[in-house]
Amino acid sequence: VVSPDVVSPDVVSPDTPGPDLRICFVGDSLVHGDGGTSVGGWVGRLVAMTQERGLRVTAYNLGVCGDTSRAIAARWYEEAERRLAAGDDQRIVFSFGVNDAAVLADGQRLLPAERSAVYLAAILRGASEAGWPALVVGPPSVADPAHTARLAELSQALQKVCTQAGAAYVPVIEAVAGSAQWRAALDANDGVHPVDAGYELLAETVAAGGWWDWLAGRGTAAAT
Amino acid sequence: VVSPDVVSPDVVSPDTPGPDLRICFVGDSLVHGDGGTSVGGWVGRLVAMTQERGLRVTAYNLGVCGDTSRAIAARWYEEAERRLAAGDDQRIVFSFGVNDAAVLADGQRLLPAERSAVYLAAILRGASEAGWPALVVGPPSVADPAHTARLAELSQALQKVCTQAGAAYVPVIEAVAGSAQWRAALDANDGVHPVDAGYELLAETVAAGGWWDWLAGRGTAAAT
Repeated sequence: VVSPDVVSPDVVSPDTPGPDLRICFVGDSLVHGDGGTSVGGWVGRLVAMTQERGLRVTAYNLGVCGDTSRAIAARWYEEAERRLAAGDDQRIVFSFGVNDAAVLADGQRLLPAERSAVYLAAILRGASEAGWPALVVGPPSVADPAHTARLAELSQALQKVCTQAGAAYVPVIEAVAGSAQWRAALDANDGVHPVDAGYELLAETVAAGGWWDWLAGRGTAAAT
Repeated sequence: VVSPDVVSPDVVSPDTPGPDLRICFVGDSLVHGDGGTSVGGWVGRLVAMTQERGLRVTAYNLGVCGDTSRAIAARWYEEAERRLAAGDDQRIVFSFGVNDAAVLADGQRLLPAERSAVYLAAILRGASEAGWPALVVGPPSVADPAHTARLAELSQALQKVCTQAGAAYVPVIEAVAGSAQWRAALDANDGVHPVDAGYELLAETVAAGGWWDWLAGRGTAAAT
């Protein structure tokens, strides 16, 4: 493998007017959109909604199936740096938790909420040092009530980290857990990854939960 | 940034039957799908076609705007390794060239075809060592005739490397350059990235050019 001795210029950037907004979405299989069709889960829908408002957005989906906060903490920076470098306005979104709070067959939880919080704090320090405004989307509910209870607790822990770090946080678990549309979308698949109707709801929940304010630069308001 | 001390298990893998096929698509802005809507360019369409045949596919789009073969050679392995590790059938697709063959304002070409060929040979050695069958999709034509002529020459050089390495190669430049649909799709955008109709044609060209044989394990047949 050859080392990069130059950074490639963006030779072929499109001619759309306005600042070149680049956003990396880093997370797990829910970020990746598993269970939905090729529209790209909530990320694809949110990006489409953003482009429909006339913003010039280049979005990168860096969701990896099975990733915990630990795996994301290990990879996010180098993957994002390569993709954000050329943009005028560089943003980063994180979303994880469903794997952290999973319990394996031996009864062991993958990561306790305190560990997830430590990883998120490290991630947000890195984003702040890089100068990339960060937004965190909390984990949604799943079909299993015990797993959902752990996710509700984790969501609160992640929100606290975001508040301390001055990053935006969009909790989604209460909005989706109370929605018949969400529960039906989970039941139509594997109980964790919704079909398209669930991703539609998730995109709307994030859009209504502080997305536009964060894009406009008033990001931390969403954490209150 | 925290080091990964464990590889996360894929806790939440879907229940679709069949081997878990994982494919990374590594390349430039044409892989990323710039110019098209949120369907995800030719990659998104090709993956949808593959899923429609009943295959259980997890696809990762690792297209980065502005990337040359040099930038791809520097990043592809670590990004792919994280995403392919958990799969039963691990595949990798590369597509680049339009930036390599671009000429900057000072008249300098970003990379001569011989350099692109050296980078591709290194990439394919790495994929072979990792045990990941590789398929390379050649660069399509662009609106500028001089750039297109350089891409045609580059396509032949890349095909030669693939033949020597035993990797599959799908040339697309002749099929799309002769298509009114492709040229209209380029003209409707920036002359390099087509609108959706162009990505539709590109997906069909790759599908007809050896995709199914390669997926079935008879990959190098496509290089002839």
